[in-house]
Amino acid sequence: MKIPASLQRLVEELARLPGIGQKTAQRLAFSILRGDAERARALSEAVLDVKRKIRFCERCFAYAEEALCPICADPGRDGTTLCVVEQPDNIYVIERSGVFRGRYHVLMGTISPLDGVGPDDLKIRELAGRMEAAPVSELILATNPSMQGEATALHLSRLLAGKCERITRLARGLPVGGTLEFTDDVTLHQAFVGRQTYLSQ
Amino acid sequence: MKIPASLQRLVEELARLPGIGQKTAQRLAFSILRGDAERARALSEAVLDVKRKIRFCERCFAYAEEALCPICADPGRDGTTLCVVEQPDNIYVIERSGVFRGRYHVLMGTISPLDGVGPDDLKIRELAGRMEAAPVSELILATNPSMQGEATALHLSRLLAGKCERITRLARGLPVGGTLEFTDDVTLHQAFVGRQTYLSQ
Repeated sequence: MKIPASLQRLVEELARLPGIGQKTAQRLAFSILRGDAERARALSEAVLDVKRKIRFCERCFAYAEEALCPICADPGRDGTTLCVVEQPDNIYVIERSGVFRGRYHVLMGTISPLDGVGPDDLKIRELAGRMEAAPVSELILATNPSMQGEATALHLSRLLAGKCERITRLARGLPVGGTLEFTDDVTLHQAFVGRQTYLSQ
Repeated sequence: MKIPASLQRLVEELARLPGIGQKTAQRLAFSILRGDAERARALSEAVLDVKRKIRFCERCFAYAEEALCPICADPGRDGTTLCVVEQPDNIYVIERSGVFRGRYHVLMGTISPLDGVGPDDLKIRELAGRMEAAPVSELILATNPSMQGEATALHLSRLLAGKCERITRLARGLPVGGTLEFTDDVTLHQAFVGRQTYLSQ
């Protein structure tokens, strides 16, 4: 296709992003080209800035620009409840829901023997250290409901039992808005096992 | 949401792109952040470059890096067949299909009295000039099948009749892969009017 080199290069770079195919990349490139120069400059700089400025929080390993991430630096967050997640990205999913007011700890992965990732490769020692340094009443294990996520949660619950009042795991069950028809067997099983008393009967 | 400023800024800039919502922008931003610095630098530069280097072809008003766009500069393209489109982007849709081997002319819009756009605001004078300068045997009007696109095609066909052997318009009909059930009345009407003899009967 006869397309100017710099436009082609932008399309290729955009198409490397996850979920962006060739057609979408073209649409985005044309939009950047048609937009004003100020917008393009802002986008270009934002891309560079994020790589230059973002590092990991020294305490919880979330994304941060300072030594501590905005959540660890916020005195209004409840430090006695820790939510353990696999990746920094996971934090923003939980934050978006607004359901949790405690602090986080990012493991930076999951235990996965097949990939050669053991407990020592994760930020588990740091988690234990935090729980020694300041009392934690509840540890919420929010690793993914996958094989590795479950294995990691099991390992943590055994390792850290007795170091806090209670260790919990996010509920498994039917997703809101889902239907029984399209629910897989394992989830349906979990939904039955975890069934709750309905209303105030 | 407690998210580092530079990450938030990248999410906002990405969310300005067409068809990119808040969630997709976050996913892209995380991917850029997790990717290596070299990729981020390449994307950042490609965004700037496209605004710095791309201008309009002096002859057909397609995107170009030189005075002429790659298609006008290609001696292998048939200069006696001109395809008229509304926007530079439209060229790449046609090029992708590989169906056309002639040259293009971009109008840079459509006649739209409500928006104050008249024939003189479009590259129509330049089109007439091209047809004077070098003989054109066929002019294909590939403006969109919309109200403004039709009005513009009608205007061009009246203005330029006699300046070339024939003026054609892209066929209207059922889109391939579509179904009768979901075809609108106007398209169905056009498909009947433009019906063609089937096979070699």
